[in-house]
Amino acid sequence: MTAEIISVGTELLLGEITNTNSQYLAEQLAHLGIAHYYQNVVGDNKERIAQVIDIAINRGARILIFTGGLGPTPDDLTTAAIAEYFQTPLVENQEILANISQKFAERSLPMSNNNCKQALLPEGAQILPNPKGTAPGIIWHVRSNLLLLTFPGVPYEMMAMWQQTAIPYLKKLGWGKQVIHSKMLRFLGIGESTLAAKIAPFFELKEPTVAPYVSKGEVRLRISAKASSEKRANELIEPVAEQIKAIAGLDYYGCDEDTISSVVGNLLLQSKQTISIAESCTGGALGELITSTAGSSLYFQGGFITYANQCKINLLGVNPKTIEEYGAVSKQVALEMAKGAVEKTNSDWAISITGIAGPSGGKSSKPVGLVYIGIANQREILKSFEYKFGSNKDRQTIRQLSASGALDQLRRLLIEQKRP
Amino acid sequence: MTAEIISVGTELLLGEITNTNSQYLAEQLAHLGIAHYYQNVVGDNKERIAQVIDIAINRGARILIFTGGLGPTPDDLTTAAIAEYFQTPLVENQEILANISQKFAERSLPMSNNNCKQALLPEGAQILPNPKGTAPGIIWHVRSNLLLLTFPGVPYEMMAMWQQTAIPYLKKLGWGKQVIHSKMLRFLGIGESTLAAKIAPFFELKEPTVAPYVSKGEVRLRISAKASSEKRANELIEPVAEQIKAIAGLDYYGCDEDTISSVVGNLLLQSKQTISIAESCTGGALGELITSTAGSSLYFQGGFITYANQCKINLLGVNPKTIEEYGAVSKQVALEMAKGAVEKTNSDWAISITGIAGPSGGKSSKPVGLVYIGIANQREILKSFEYKFGSNKDRQTIRQLSASGALDQLRRLLIEQKRP
Repeated sequence: MTAEIISVGTELLLGEITNTNSQYLAEQLAHLGIAHYYQNVVGDNKERIAQVIDIAINRGARILIFTGGLGPTPDDLTTAAIAEYFQTPLVENQEILANISQKFAERSLPMSNNNCKQALLPEGAQILPNPKGTAPGIIWHVRSNLLLLTFPGVPYEMMAMWQQTAIPYLKKLGWGKQVIHSKMLRFLGIGESTLAAKIAPFFELKEPTVAPYVSKGEVRLRISAKASSEKRANELIEPVAEQIKAIAGLDYYGCDEDTISSVVGNLLLQSKQTISIAESCTGGALGELITSTAGSSLYFQGGFITYANQCKINLLGVNPKTIEEYGAVSKQVALEMAKGAVEKTNSDWAISITGIAGPSGGKSSKPVGLVYIGIANQREILKSFEYKFGSNKDRQTIRQLSASGALDQLRRLLIEQKRP
Repeated sequence: MTAEIISVGTELLLGEITNTNSQYLAEQLAHLGIAHYYQNVVGDNKERIAQVIDIAINRGARILIFTGGLGPTPDDLTTAAIAEYFQTPLVENQEILANISQKFAERSLPMSNNNCKQALLPEGAQILPNPKGTAPGIIWHVRSNLLLLTFPGVPYEMMAMWQQTAIPYLKKLGWGKQVIHSKMLRFLGIGESTLAAKIAPFFELKEPTVAPYVSKGEVRLRISAKASSEKRANELIEPVAEQIKAIAGLDYYGCDEDTISSVVGNLLLQSKQTISIAESCTGGALGELITSTAGSSLYFQGGFITYANQCKINLLGVNPKTIEEYGAVSKQVALEMAKGAVEKTNSDWAISITGIAGPSGGKSSKPVGLVYIGIANQREILKSFEYKFGSNKDRQTIRQLSASGALDQLRRLLIEQKRP
């Protein structure tokens, strides 16, 4: 009993988007213990979609998972192609129609005839509700040994539908009895090869397995085990996680859904302290990162985006002479920015960032990727940190690394402060 | 004469990596004018690889492009599977063997027997050299109407091989004489179905074709034409683009690499005006969006992230009574924030955002997704805009839509100002 993933969309064939949906679904199928041996990409074309369905069924697939082609426009053909292949009429579902009308009404938008198409389901199919958008999918037991699931191509809609409806449905059918469970450990301020060298023996383990990943400046280790339950898998995972955490020390910052933003937020909540910020080259990215955590209003006061030097002087009270003498991208300006933010907002802590995000503006003494971070509190702490992210990095990456690096430095200070 | 992409690797079936290779190759094929209608992913399994080859040939593919499974380990089976399928013996290629030995010697690494496997080619196949790694690929004209190309799965190796050898080879075969060229039109402030209804007849066109896309709150239309040159393709595309732009009016904001940030930036540069901002619920996302455009320091002064009400009062001069009477999420507070930012920074324009990004904090009178945008200039303009993004949207999406919506409103005002 195997599954196949069928991604529908001419934009995939033209290379306009990356097929992240297949990766997500593949990982999810592995978690549930559902084998799948093939993935397919096909354009918005009824005959070719039918052909792919035919091939998948002929080579033994009993669960077909479609993404894409559920939208309101004429090139969205997945549902129609499926109905035609199984020679089943499409019927208008009143519940979906009412639901779509309501969503349009809520947003005071006119509903077009195109949207009505999204209410058509093959006779006998159930709705796979879409809590995040207008296009619902279907769950259709075409026959006892053939199940079809359809999802829109928009990743966050697809994922919400998978989590809320598809997983419980598949579990009710008996899947997910052997689970592959993972824990993701997250690290900042250490490179992949350095961390890998420190924990080399763990990569040889068979149960659980340990695998490294790198993205956006953070290193992650995934510890995975296959067992009869999540609890049993965790009993295999946890001792290994604890050993690795002990080796990594402060470079380990959190696990699973933790982000550097949520971890720093929790530390601030625990110590009942508040924070403000002063950003230059990141232009708002640090504030956005902090406030990406829901509930951040409990500790985040606000801050200043001082892109122009005049703003640094007028809004934060940076001394014009400091800028003249050391340049806007300097340790000294970072410190005065942080100090200014603490004073103006009366927060417990402030973080500042000033640097050269590029692509232009670099010179040999101050290359693109040079970033200074300042941290101040109301009392004795006034620290700066220099980062050289490398001039081969792009603007967006340098800004992201600066924002997460700044929060990571505050995290280390907050943990040190807690120590007796 | 169509191509198929066949990605080989059990790691793809487990969802451990994203299939970026398929996207890259798909885009490359489109540029060369080589049609492809299907993509395949299959595990490291000889029988299944053979089956995929069989299906591809049967549905008319004449160029098969493989990625993955060329490495030195026992699970790398692509070459062997291909040779077996075509009943052709594998022969050791001395050139490859010498090349691999040399690469190991250069890095003072021992060479294992496994690596010798990488020197085996199906009889009659040529080497597709790999300048970036040990595993070369093959170029194999199995018969006059069937060409096979294999690449390793490592993206930068695959891309270097594609650029250096595959493209010149395919061009010598006569490909690339017809190119598919596209122009992407970008729209904000209009839904996909509404725009689709307005320009419905264009979807029927055959040359160029018009197809809609949606992401992150913006609708895009891709106009594509196949022609003997990019210039000729553009001659087909441009008249259609102009007609659509005329129908869409102000809802059209830019094309191709334009972003709402770069478009507003250009309008400000043209009019030699500056901007500042005041953000609440977006927490920095608007500033980040504006400064994602390189060179934004020429018009972006800076701004205020006033998450706490006290910051709105202290930093921007919002009247505490306004907050008390109308709430922090109100048209009135948005207007006072924008006015405060213009005054404090002395910029020509200011944009403010205050809203409820969720997931909590919503109530029936002010639901999650309710956002007010304020725009002020130094003279007569002081406007507010209400958005209802819908409480089913997640925090991050509401914040992104708010930031791009705010810039879109400024764009419309700047264009109106320019009109005589």
